Amino acid sequence: MTRTPVQRASGRRDRPGYDRDSLLEIAVMVFNERGYDGTGMEELARRLGLSKSSIYHHVSGKEELLDLAVSRALDALFAVLDEDGDSQATATARLERIVRRSVEVLVAELPYVTLLLRVHGNSEAERRALERRREFDHRVAELVARAAAEGGVRNDIAPHLASRLLFGTVNSLVEWYRPEGGLPAAVLADSVAAVLFDGLRARSVR
Amino acid sequence: MTRTPVQRASGRRDRPGYDRDSLLEIAVMVFNERGYDGTGMEELARRLGLSKSSIYHHVSGKEELLDLAVSRALDALFAVLDEDGDSQATATARLERIVRRSVEVLVAELPYVTLLLRVHGNSEAERRALERRREFDHRVAELVARAAAEGGVRNDIAPHLASRLLFGTVNSLVEWYRPEGGLPAAVLADSVAAVLFDGLRARSVR
Repeated sequence: MTRTPVQRASGRRDRPGYDRDSLLEIAVMVFNERGYDGTGMEELARRLGLSKSSIYHHVSGKEELLDLAVSRALDALFAVLDEDGDSQATATARLERIVRRSVEVLVAELPYVTLLLRVHGNSEAERRALERRREFDHRVAELVARAAAEGGVRNDIAPHLASRLLFGTVNSLVEWYRPEGGLPAAVLADSVAAVLFDGLRARSVR
Repeated sequence: MTRTPVQRASGRRDRPGYDRDSLLEIAVMVFNERGYDGTGMEELARRLGLSKSSIYHHVSGKEELLDLAVSRALDALFAVLDEDGDSQATATARLERIVRRSVEVLVAELPYVTLLLRVHGNSEAERRALERRREFDHRVAELVARAAAEGGVRNDIAPHLASRLLFGTVNSLVEWYRPEGGLPAAVLADSVAAVLFDGLRARSVR
């Protein structure tokens, strides 16, 4: 997902050096470093090497950048729920697959998911993002309840608590996981699913 | 751990209404709401209903408040490692107990642990806190390695990764757990330990 600023062919009225995606990528990096609330358009313009009016050529302002960034993360996470349409699979197998795939999305979209998880709800765009996060949690909790009903997951932990522990663990990866650290996304996804579904304890039979 | 501002006996030169602990409690609440970096001494003074010079009567400044707050969280967490001195217990049993007790500390010291987990390292006090967090992670990872060596925890997940997943899950509780929500700390601690050590999957024999 790494994009470098594109070199525009001359003759376009668009600003040289950036399209909206590459501008977004740098804005998200700055938001993650300094906090969304703490970043002004002046600082963004400075880091992009653009005038503020050049940024307004691409987006209506800071809030649209936030909206684009967190929508990218949320769309990718909801796609994981929606792609999981195998009606033959048990709810438990689907839940495990969603955990694994969410780890992969988190790795692929790391800066965007990181920003999403830091959103506090101080603006309309942030409140919309929080609403979609709650909807995601709700759908996962429903699936946990079905998995418990079919006997696949333990029933001594309430579905909403189980859902929060599953995604608390997945989301905590943004705090330390760095792709350049050499741990492949697939190994990370397997390890997270192994601990969450089968536990860290050694067993004679797995 | 809830403290209300104490009413000072008159005749003390100390400022009325606050001792250092109750001042710290409110400062931590403001830091958690607005971010440490985003909170100035003016805002703190306003929220406390004090002049800035009255705050300086108690502490040397914002950084000392941060230091006191994160040290309180870290001291409580290190106490969990240190109280775990039962040389008869297996490393696995000790690790499980540390996870459980850390959840209880997180609940008891929720605002202080929340602030600790948001520290970025922009000041000397923050860098000291990060250094102590690394030391904590390192000691947990060592214990995971011993637990794997004795055959108590699975050996297909590297100790440092296992340690990060364990405390990623524990730390994620600050994002949603609220004591007033009615989930007792002991139930939460049991559920977290149950999922992390035995997994969410139902088993015929537990």
